[in-house]
Amino acid sequence: MTVLPEPISNLIQSFERLPGIGPKTASRLAFFLLRAPDDLSQNLAQALLALKNTTGMCPVCFNITLAHQETCDICANPHRDQDSLCIVEEPLDVLMIEQTGGFNGRYHVLHGVLSPIEGIGPEDLKLASLVERVRKGDIREVIVATNPSMEGDATALYIRQQVSSYGVRVTRLARGLPVGGDLEYADQNTILRALAGRQEII
Amino acid sequence: MTVLPEPISNLIQSFERLPGIGPKTASRLAFFLLRAPDDLSQNLAQALLALKNTTGMCPVCFNITLAHQETCDICANPHRDQDSLCIVEEPLDVLMIEQTGGFNGRYHVLHGVLSPIEGIGPEDLKLASLVERVRKGDIREVIVATNPSMEGDATALYIRQQVSSYGVRVTRLARGLPVGGDLEYADQNTILRALAGRQEII
Repeated sequence: MTVLPEPISNLIQSFERLPGIGPKTASRLAFFLLRAPDDLSQNLAQALLALKNTTGMCPVCFNITLAHQETCDICANPHRDQDSLCIVEEPLDVLMIEQTGGFNGRYHVLHGVLSPIEGIGPEDLKLASLVERVRKGDIREVIVATNPSMEGDATALYIRQQVSSYGVRVTRLARGLPVGGDLEYADQNTILRALAGRQEII
Repeated sequence: MTVLPEPISNLIQSFERLPGIGPKTASRLAFFLLRAPDDLSQNLAQALLALKNTTGMCPVCFNITLAHQETCDICANPHRDQDSLCIVEEPLDVLMIEQTGGFNGRYHVLHGVLSPIEGIGPEDLKLASLVERVRKGDIREVIVATNPSMEGDATALYIRQQVSSYGVRVTRLARGLPVGGDLEYADQNTILRALAGRQEII
């Protein structure tokens, strides 16, 4: 007993394939666009079509870049520190760290993490090129900013093993209570980490 | 300090204009599509472009219909009851009620509710055509299924006033505890309504 015209059910199905969007949200979005001014759906469609044609990957750090650019803006920027390299899982992580303004070095995007369960090994990630960058360049610190998960930790360990012979410092982002968080809602592992990493009040 | 290539920030901005999608979700969707197979973003774009060109509004009930159809499938269906009319705010509400299979009459979509605060009066809704349908047709019951909000209630009252002279029964969907819900999490108004509408166990 379908009562939905095909164009709408098509759009709902397309929305449902996006992460975090279930059938209810997909319907809500489709019916919203039906009522909304034409340019809203037109703009979204144009942006979607342009996405893959006009973007590429920086051959140095594997961050997203414009298709016609040689390297990304960060790699091309002479004012960024040459001696520190931040390793992240995904291009979105670069954005998150850039928005903090707390890092002025360069990045290396792995495009995933090591995961034996999902069959993702070192050769599936941008790891060889990372080791090559460390070997060639004058990098002094490698900050591993993979997610604080089991896979992120394993990847961090692997990276340390791979680059330790080149005399670089390998660090990992601190774990602890999130700022503004509440002890009451923190999980046990986070509290254990926060205890272990406690610092002198000065 | 923007580090995002324009095609991505464009897509993020387009997603952000949709209801319930904030900057974080918009970024996540854009970066997901960047990694996902091409056809995912292509299909969504095509569905968006087709939406407005291929859909129209049923001239009888104002539900969504295909552009080339004269009336919607429900209005055109001779097996649907002619004598009961369900009034809803939006086309999505038709879908929600149809999915229950609990109603076999026809619909009338108001495309909004009366809201003096937002300056929406009777002439902004499909109310005149509703009164006309009741006047002309052999409708015996009008079920007002506007949302259980202040505006939905006011609109229901207005409809009752407008059609009462035609000798039709005007009803409203029952209020009470949602099925599977928990008294502990119900708000006071819902509990008050559930108490007032309590029914004999038989």
